[in-house]
Amino acid sequence: MTSTAAKPSLDPKDFRNALSMFATGVTIVTTRSGDGEPVGITANSFNSVSLDPPLVLWSLAKNAYSLPVFQHAKEWNVHILSNEQEALSNKFAKKGEDKFAQIALDQGVTASPLLPGCSARFQCRTMFEYEGGDHIIFVGEVLAYDRQPTPPLLYLSGNYALATKKAAAIATEAASDAGAAPSLFSEDLLGYLLGRAHYQFMSAVRPMMHTYGLSEKDFFALSLLSVRDQVAPEEIAQHTAYTGTGVDEASLHSLLERQLIAKGQQGYTLTEQGRSAMAHIIAAAKAQEEDLGEKMGALEMAALRNLLKHTISQTDPGLSKLWKS
Amino acid sequence: MTSTAAKPSLDPKDFRNALSMFATGVTIVTTRSGDGEPVGITANSFNSVSLDPPLVLWSLAKNAYSLPVFQHAKEWNVHILSNEQEALSNKFAKKGEDKFAQIALDQGVTASPLLPGCSARFQCRTMFEYEGGDHIIFVGEVLAYDRQPTPPLLYLSGNYALATKKAAAIATEAASDAGAAPSLFSEDLLGYLLGRAHYQFMSAVRPMMHTYGLSEKDFFALSLLSVRDQVAPEEIAQHTAYTGTGVDEASLHSLLERQLIAKGQQGYTLTEQGRSAMAHIIAAAKAQEEDLGEKMGALEMAALRNLLKHTISQTDPGLSKLWKS
Repeated sequence: MTSTAAKPSLDPKDFRNALSMFATGVTIVTTRSGDGEPVGITANSFNSVSLDPPLVLWSLAKNAYSLPVFQHAKEWNVHILSNEQEALSNKFAKKGEDKFAQIALDQGVTASPLLPGCSARFQCRTMFEYEGGDHIIFVGEVLAYDRQPTPPLLYLSGNYALATKKAAAIATEAASDAGAAPSLFSEDLLGYLLGRAHYQFMSAVRPMMHTYGLSEKDFFALSLLSVRDQVAPEEIAQHTAYTGTGVDEASLHSLLERQLIAKGQQGYTLTEQGRSAMAHIIAAAKAQEEDLGEKMGALEMAALRNLLKHTISQTDPGLSKLWKS
Repeated sequence: MTSTAAKPSLDPKDFRNALSMFATGVTIVTTRSGDGEPVGITANSFNSVSLDPPLVLWSLAKNAYSLPVFQHAKEWNVHILSNEQEALSNKFAKKGEDKFAQIALDQGVTASPLLPGCSARFQCRTMFEYEGGDHIIFVGEVLAYDRQPTPPLLYLSGNYALATKKAAAIATEAASDAGAAPSLFSEDLLGYLLGRAHYQFMSAVRPMMHTYGLSEKDFFALSLLSVRDQVAPEEIAQHTAYTGTGVDEASLHSLLERQLIAKGQQGYTLTEQGRSAMAHIIAAAKAQEEDLGEKMGALEMAALRNLLKHTISQTDPGLSKLWKS
């Protein structure tokens, strides 16, 4: 690791890349202009400073359009964005347009706009305004604050990110008796982890599948039709092939006979009966998900979903999208 | 979401909890005392301030033992810790002991101690020292810096964390035609994500299962015997019940006939032939895992394993452990 002398040849982009190794949350800081217009910008330069008195800081570029507004207003709100507010972050990171359009603001202790749905909010009054090179550092006294248990949005190396709790050390030794043949795989084998997590999760859902007399094949075909209408048999086969269960004409015929699906000109569609069965099965899956969410916490659940989506897109055999993006 | 007035009744612990919703990296800041002794502390109050001139800031409690040292020294190094430096973070967060013992320091542009193995480092000289309530804010000019592509350690809500790249915005609307019945579930349904990730992953492994003529049932029984020797039929049934495939006497009998397993006094064990078949199947699973790892990156894979383990332990029907912990 060689040190790069910052002067005289500091490359701003390279320096920024080094700084971006420090992960941060993402905030929107809001205030009002002299004529009452709401103003807000995305910033990740926030940090806590002091507990007594309660102080926080953030910094704003001297050439920022909103600098004089913040300097004049003396009051501002810092919103720590939740993992669901990526779009809001992008909106407030740009200039122009009415950023506050269609946002129902909450009532705060000052006139500064208070955005809903954040992980935490700090309503502040400027206590100090410090020189910071090409930025001004605002140190504010916290007049009021609140928080919600929604996982925050992160920013790291120029990308949005989610956080996951760091796990304890990983076990790699099999619990077999001494002298036994060595294990062929360890607890870290991803295929094992995916399978066991999936099947154990589904064991709370399977009884409901059995109530409606559904096999795995039946279930995969009906799942697809729960999301899409009028699907041709080839398309059903193609979309369920990755399950390895082999949904074919015979399985569709059986579903037709049981009046769980109906055949139209453009393909198969769930009947009311099929829709009702699937609604009950999905309700069981949602109940299991809720139960798991209570044990794991919202942050871990969001990260798990996120990583499963990565896994799905990286192993996708080239299926058309089931949902609009 | 109700606002909590910060004054007069601010609860320091509650306020700190709200502040901790802002994720940060973890740094160690080092300097040398007047008599040349190395000094260092863990801090997460770091942030970038200015590109031109290059400035960063961090804050230190006024009652910190090391405050006078930093105020006198005027030079200090900020180290952004990697995800492998959790122990170092803990060490420098405490008082006493010789924190620098057994650390081979790198050579920097100042006399301040430069720790190896970090995600990024900034060698600084104090430019401003600002009042910040119960803390002093140090703003330093960056004299030199460097970085490594090792994932950084995070701190969020009082816990160490890892970051995972956020997936693209979540689609919740079905891609059906307008006028079609609404989807019964969205792309966020965890059961769907687990299933699709699992089955798509396994689609690279299934051909190898078919090469050896193995059904799902066969595969689950042989998987268990790949990790444990001499397993009684009831125990095999119990340990594979969560898969819903119903491994029974008949399936074990079929495996016996194909000489993939052998029956001993204390239960079933893989034959050499069974072991070889499973070794090939597991090799296919490992190849798929490696392929996925190259696409997703080590950090994401570690986080995914981590979260699947959480999921497994939270949905465990009470099975005995397969591996020692």
